[in-house]
Amino acid sequence: MTLDELVQTIRPPDADAANAARERHTRLAKPPGSLGRLEALGTQLAGIAGRCPPPVPSAPVVVVAAGDHGVHARGVSDWPQSVTSAMVATVAGGGAAVNAIAHAVGATVTAVDVGTMGSGTPPPGVRDRRVRAGTRDLTAEPAMTIEECTAAIAVGAEAADEALAAGADLLATGEVGIANTTPSACLIAALTGVAPEAVTGRGANLDDTRTSRKLDAVKSALARHGGDRDPLGVLASLGGLEHAALVGVVLAGAAARAPVVVDGVISGAAALAAVALCPDVAGYLIPGHASAEPGGRALADRLGRPPLIDLELRLGEGTGALLAVPLVRSAAAVLTDMATLDSVVDP
Amino acid sequence: MTLDELVQTIRPPDADAANAARERHTRLAKPPGSLGRLEALGTQLAGIAGRCPPPVPSAPVVVVAAGDHGVHARGVSDWPQSVTSAMVATVAGGGAAVNAIAHAVGATVTAVDVGTMGSGTPPPGVRDRRVRAGTRDLTAEPAMTIEECTAAIAVGAEAADEALAAGADLLATGEVGIANTTPSACLIAALTGVAPEAVTGRGANLDDTRTSRKLDAVKSALARHGGDRDPLGVLASLGGLEHAALVGVVLAGAAARAPVVVDGVISGAAALAAVALCPDVAGYLIPGHASAEPGGRALADRLGRPPLIDLELRLGEGTGALLAVPLVRSAAAVLTDMATLDSVVDP
Repeated sequence: MTLDELVQTIRPPDADAANAARERHTRLAKPPGSLGRLEALGTQLAGIAGRCPPPVPSAPVVVVAAGDHGVHARGVSDWPQSVTSAMVATVAGGGAAVNAIAHAVGATVTAVDVGTMGSGTPPPGVRDRRVRAGTRDLTAEPAMTIEECTAAIAVGAEAADEALAAGADLLATGEVGIANTTPSACLIAALTGVAPEAVTGRGANLDDTRTSRKLDAVKSALARHGGDRDPLGVLASLGGLEHAALVGVVLAGAAARAPVVVDGVISGAAALAAVALCPDVAGYLIPGHASAEPGGRALADRLGRPPLIDLELRLGEGTGALLAVPLVRSAAAVLTDMATLDSVVDP
Repeated sequence: MTLDELVQTIRPPDADAANAARERHTRLAKPPGSLGRLEALGTQLAGIAGRCPPPVPSAPVVVVAAGDHGVHARGVSDWPQSVTSAMVATVAGGGAAVNAIAHAVGATVTAVDVGTMGSGTPPPGVRDRRVRAGTRDLTAEPAMTIEECTAAIAVGAEAADEALAAGADLLATGEVGIANTTPSACLIAALTGVAPEAVTGRGANLDDTRTSRKLDAVKSALARHGGDRDPLGVLASLGGLEHAALVGVVLAGAAARAPVVVDGVISGAAALAAVALCPDVAGYLIPGHASAEPGGRALADRLGRPPLIDLELRLGEGTGALLAVPLVRSAAAVLTDMATLDSVVDP
């Protein structure tokens, strides 16, 4: 399926099912509105599923997409690029934070190498779908060609489709990629029109020098790119291979009418690009965890839905998205399991 | 066991185990501190368990204590008192919000009637431990005698002990009691010295008239009670039977070195009373969900630990506490499951 064909299959969530959930919430055995944002979430899930009550997700899968970044050469990270491959191997081996949290919340982890610098055979358990060995330096030239970008989107869509075909009923986005808060800041600035200073932060504990280099890189990239806001062009010019793959995960999830829980700022930047490519995916997206990065708010602002959790995580991998999964289950369970008020209290 | 004997058995969490967790967090395969508040939570869990890594809770139990309130006669609630018994029956029958969320997060619900107005045999599944049929009107006289209050504490401790004996490894607090935000406001004001206006809110959607009546009731109760801050005297004079029972749950949990996840403002008021009775319980308490009630911050302020979640719930029953349980599991799983950095990246 081409990207255009995939986008064409996506429909917005079902308004009738969402309305049925809204109405059902008023009849449940509780004061109206007393479950707060859990009610809005349940309503969204009903719209996504096209029925009320919506199913309680039992088989969540987090797709962890990994890529490296040419902009690393600009000194925007404290970590060597080899850490990307090492962390993908750790995710595949079950020893990363995302695995621990997946275990705790009952989710499955899929690791996809869409473009690390690693050469040779990837470690066991890593899906090897390298489009190229890292992006180009986005301060100097487009990070990807349009063809590379669409290939990376297809990699993510394929991973999501395979998970869905195997029974996944909720997708979460995750990523590994040393230096990837820099392209994230570029994507958010280019897609929202916000100034680089307002979206560029300290990533994984950067000091002042590296933060300043990072801001210079973001400004250079945006100046080189120009003001073009064509979503695919922005993604190819300024994004990472893992961002593109996560765009594919979002599109495939929405096409299959599955809820997609979005992790922090890197996943959020990818989801913003997906919404720009296909506005109808917005209704399928659930911001999972707030990001400490200043650009982390952009997706929630665009969706009008704040993140479900803020525990000050700044790790990525999908950890924040997975922490929110039990809240999604709870929101669906409320609509499924609760008695109605008229059945417990005499009218 | 008397209340004094129970209090005497409680020791603070283990500082060595907490330090071991703090140190282990710095060696795990992630940037230092990048799991944010999940790291502080894991450290607390290690201290509670007295070992690092701490066990991942597999059998959480929420104790839902129910009671009625003499102050209801002052017009401080929109709901008739009969709703308390009806809701306890709903909890026991599995149709309340707390049951739906327990199902979603893998927890068990225990319902204890410590003093509803209901007469006759309680519905199936409700533990019948009524100390008296509702409290007295706290604006006019002490809500309970000291003997009634200690009996209600014992009811909660007994329910917690039975759950722990049956394998529970985490306790959560919950309650049902029409009008119980009023005694909660009284307890918080009396235990913290904060003014009534600063702790009295709209409960379950009160209008201006009822909110004003509620504030009058809180002021009258505090004026009648006087400035005495003896914790047991405060609890008996101003609390509810369900507050006292939850004090028992907290004390029994701490005595057994189990983490105790605290729900919103009513549970928070009870936990404050427990901390006043026995300061060493503080280390066992995990604020689960923020409360919309203005007094809801008092416990978190006292503990120096903000609630884990804020989804604007204002229902009680233990719903907010249960939503936080997967976060507690995740914090423990991080310490248990994650690889160390030196095992994945060459030094």
